[in-house]
Amino acid sequence: MNKVFIVGAGPGAADLLTLRAARLLGEKAEIVLTDELVSPEVLAMVRPQAKVLRVGKRGGRASTSQGFIHRLMVRYARQHKVVVRLKGGDPFVFGRGGEEIEALASAGIEAEVVPGLTAGISVPATLGIPVTHRDHTHGVSLVTATTRDGKGPDWAALARSGTTLVIYMGLAHLLNIVARLLVSGLPASTPAAAIASGTLPEQRQVVATLGELPARVAAEGLSSPALIIVGAVAGLARAQTGTPEDFATRRVA
Amino acid sequence: MNKVFIVGAGPGAADLLTLRAARLLGEKAEIVLTDELVSPEVLAMVRPQAKVLRVGKRGGRASTSQGFIHRLMVRYARQHKVVVRLKGGDPFVFGRGGEEIEALASAGIEAEVVPGLTAGISVPATLGIPVTHRDHTHGVSLVTATTRDGKGPDWAALARSGTTLVIYMGLAHLLNIVARLLVSGLPASTPAAAIASGTLPEQRQVVATLGELPARVAAEGLSSPALIIVGAVAGLARAQTGTPEDFATRRVA
Repeated sequence: MNKVFIVGAGPGAADLLTLRAARLLGEKAEIVLTDELVSPEVLAMVRPQAKVLRVGKRGGRASTSQGFIHRLMVRYARQHKVVVRLKGGDPFVFGRGGEEIEALASAGIEAEVVPGLTAGISVPATLGIPVTHRDHTHGVSLVTATTRDGKGPDWAALARSGTTLVIYMGLAHLLNIVARLLVSGLPASTPAAAIASGTLPEQRQVVATLGELPARVAAEGLSSPALIIVGAVAGLARAQTGTPEDFATRRVA
Repeated sequence: MNKVFIVGAGPGAADLLTLRAARLLGEKAEIVLTDELVSPEVLAMVRPQAKVLRVGKRGGRASTSQGFIHRLMVRYARQHKVVVRLKGGDPFVFGRGGEEIEALASAGIEAEVVPGLTAGISVPATLGIPVTHRDHTHGVSLVTATTRDGKGPDWAALARSGTTLVIYMGLAHLLNIVARLLVSGLPASTPAAAIASGTLPEQRQVVATLGELPARVAAEGLSSPALIIVGAVAGLARAQTGTPEDFATRRVA
């Protein structure tokens, strides 16, 4: 049908997929081009007849170039396959979904986006951290530690904005980020958190002050992928008791 | 079980619920306390044995006070009912989920959050607008037009931050928001969009420049609830052909 579905797989847990994404994977998909960040439990939902190709940017192998991913999508779409491009989180939040739509459009191929839960909002929720709370913040900013120009975002403006900061892919740059925020006037006592492998059984986290976060993260040995949260709402973190196991599943009924 | 599930219903379309939320509503819920913003097609997924109470802040009736909602949740949880507090979008993005957890905690009642797709990310996607795109933006800021102190966010800092701005509940304040952003240095030619009733059949939108947005919104007669998007990515909007009807459903299989 010369169309590619660009689908968000959410933060990790399989039952945090949308119904629309689950049905596409479980009932319709013929070709699935998946990022490495998509969890095994989500991939287990793909119908067995479908061909799953890993085209991720991480892992032991050399990473697949973005151009090659574009060519694969175009090739399978032209074979009239139901092609699903599966991405961790949401395709439009640091997921390069925009670039992939542009590549498809220039090849004359239609794209339909199926949104997913982005980790920056759903993962803090596992600790009871609301990224917005009208007593504590004016909103939330989702940013990456480094941008394409290599400079990173305007940390001073972000610090002044009064929004909760959620930083994706920031663990490797943590010392630098913290230094920039402190210089921009955020108090070292600002609550902060780092969360690795959010929503998965191996999730680990550190909740600390901004000033103490780098040392605590190092001491606990947290590793990427991880999110960093900075702002008063991080101080609302609590151990969320209860597991969602009652409602978990591997496959759509 | 003295526990309340605080559940995000997503932007409107029923198949944009998570599997976890759909199973809770369709198989487990005994009491559902729902906001007015939750769409009828989502409410149709609630199991018929459940009691659904509308406790929204909009609509023709006098709005229910937040304190009364807290007391209802506590009362039903103490009766050991499976209580679902159902909220449009995500409970932690301008959804007062944080306040409700605090109220439950002070009554000794456990809360479990089930995240939902927030409109600020999933609704622009219906037009092919990626809220982030590494060629155009350093991230995305989700804010409300007015904050609890009545002052609104720091528009100047947001304008300087280099992030896409997504403004919730901003239509009634559109002229003021646009004026503040122009004064803060955003060019009048900055791409912008306003989208009402996102993801629902009655969705309507305007894509324009920041300078022209208020007049275009007035001319088209857009009404709340609506989102406003400001930033270069709004210039990537296109008519997204194809509907998700193949995968739509009213009820979990």
